[in-house]
Amino acid sequence: MKILVVGSVAYDAVETPEGKRVSQLGGSASYFSVAASHFTDVGIVGVVGRDFRDEDLRMYEAHGIDISGLEIADGKTFRWAGDYMQDINTAVTHETQLNVFADFTPDLDERHATAPYLFLANINPSIQLSVLNKMSSRPKLVACDTMNLWIDIARPALAELIGKVDALMINEGEARQFTEDDHLPTAARSLLNQGPSTVVIKRGEYGAAMFNHAFNFAAPAYPLATVVDPTGAGDSFAGGFMGYIAATGDTSEEGLRRAAIVGSTMASFAVEAFGLDRTRNLTHEDIAERYQSFVNLTRFLPLSSSSGLPRRPGS
Amino acid sequence: MKILVVGSVAYDAVETPEGKRVSQLGGSASYFSVAASHFTDVGIVGVVGRDFRDEDLRMYEAHGIDISGLEIADGKTFRWAGDYMQDINTAVTHETQLNVFADFTPDLDERHATAPYLFLANINPSIQLSVLNKMSSRPKLVACDTMNLWIDIARPALAELIGKVDALMINEGEARQFTEDDHLPTAARSLLNQGPSTVVIKRGEYGAAMFNHAFNFAAPAYPLATVVDPTGAGDSFAGGFMGYIAATGDTSEEGLRRAAIVGSTMASFAVEAFGLDRTRNLTHEDIAERYQSFVNLTRFLPLSSSSGLPRRPGS
Repeated sequence: MKILVVGSVAYDAVETPEGKRVSQLGGSASYFSVAASHFTDVGIVGVVGRDFRDEDLRMYEAHGIDISGLEIADGKTFRWAGDYMQDINTAVTHETQLNVFADFTPDLDERHATAPYLFLANINPSIQLSVLNKMSSRPKLVACDTMNLWIDIARPALAELIGKVDALMINEGEARQFTEDDHLPTAARSLLNQGPSTVVIKRGEYGAAMFNHAFNFAAPAYPLATVVDPTGAGDSFAGGFMGYIAATGDTSEEGLRRAAIVGSTMASFAVEAFGLDRTRNLTHEDIAERYQSFVNLTRFLPLSSSSGLPRRPGS
Repeated sequence: MKILVVGSVAYDAVETPEGKRVSQLGGSASYFSVAASHFTDVGIVGVVGRDFRDEDLRMYEAHGIDISGLEIADGKTFRWAGDYMQDINTAVTHETQLNVFADFTPDLDERHATAPYLFLANINPSIQLSVLNKMSSRPKLVACDTMNLWIDIARPALAELIGKVDALMINEGEARQFTEDDHLPTAARSLLNQGPSTVVIKRGEYGAAMFNHAFNFAAPAYPLATVVDPTGAGDSFAGGFMGYIAATGDTSEEGLRRAAIVGSTMASFAVEAFGLDRTRNLTHEDIAERYQSFVNLTRFLPLSSSSGLPRRPGS
């Protein structure tokens, strides 16, 4: 197992201008693991209820995802209901039913506890910390995500967690909220000074900005003709990002830059269809082709001695 | 004269979290011409009042800007007052005094009418159209900007103008408003179908997105530690963009991509100080160095046969 992810596995009811789904497989660990599975071996630690569908377990297995850490507990699977009808970039939550997730205490077996890469997807920071503490050796790279709820109700635990991870993935609004700094470049610096060596700010339709003590990197969002369902875009980004790094072992500046583009690639696929419909059916060629589209979207020629910056005569 | 710009010359009263200025030289034609003057010869067509300061006329001349088309009329110079106290990305207008601008009817002499590049900065689209119609031959490239006011009160004239320009520069919100399409990639396509071969969507702190029938290009904003005064960022972008194209004559895809980065470079300088304070004092080396910073901000390695996309064993 190259990457261990701990996070939610959920059934979502979601409505967007493109349609409506009920009981759609979702949750941060689902989006993350399916995206990462294109690149390397992933294992999930999480919990579902007795209502969890066999076909969904088989879908994970078809992607080589290790679900030995996916506990099946008495009760119902975590459920989220929401819509993106007013603004495709902003989910309006109708209902959150924690169900079996309410009493979730993750257990790690030997294979989980020795995974070299760890992603602590968006759940209660106490659970994220407990998983990190249960690792038998420090992973090569630990990344986490979070949400505004935990900033509101669990700030001390979240601050402790941020102090212990290598990479923090966080939404723009949450970065502003946590740092109380509206200006993103200085908010990101402030987060870097609290522990992580890399901070990835997720900006939805504007892409992602990666900050590091050594460099900054801007990754645009891919200009899709239609966004069908934005749910899971951030976790799919994280899955591509961590999947690339875990598969190559490359945490150099060049590796992180490429990883951010692989992440952007997976996020762009995620939103093209409802739920995991697009991400789980991708070929290796689809992914390589979209990566190349990001090259085309961002490339420009540097200045050179033969083709430098023009200058007004006399200036 | 390589570029003719028609637009406003103004005295602005502006307040930002970084300070306050009264009677600061501004206006779309000022920001555009000073930015473009680093690269090529620019001439302004516009109007000011009897209160216009000699030192400001001399500032233009020091940048080689041709002000023979800058009429000095009886009355006061156009004045705008506003602040960015709530949100550094959004100006709140306190007052707009048109003054001499109310009766402005631009006259073009032979040198103006034969300029090979024309920028129709944000003014009433009827004036933009009249200047375009007075050109004695079709310029190699005509670009225009606009604002929400003209979409509200002069949509037919604006639509006619958009049908006649090569490049449209427009804010994100205005692109949505004009096309009645909230999704930017399709809004941009809709604008392209109305005439321009290139549409540049200005996104403030998120940079700029350039759409063309042949390609898309994303230019990030430079992550500055502090934004002092965002006034004139869009016009400075346009000045860098048009200045680069006019100086090189390069309207190829590669030229347009570079021009967008030169534009982003000039916009990033514009907001670093109040008014024209930074833009007018730049050296050629400052500009080349910032351009290189954009290379560093966006570069990543393409996939290659030796270093391709990793793949999960068995997938």
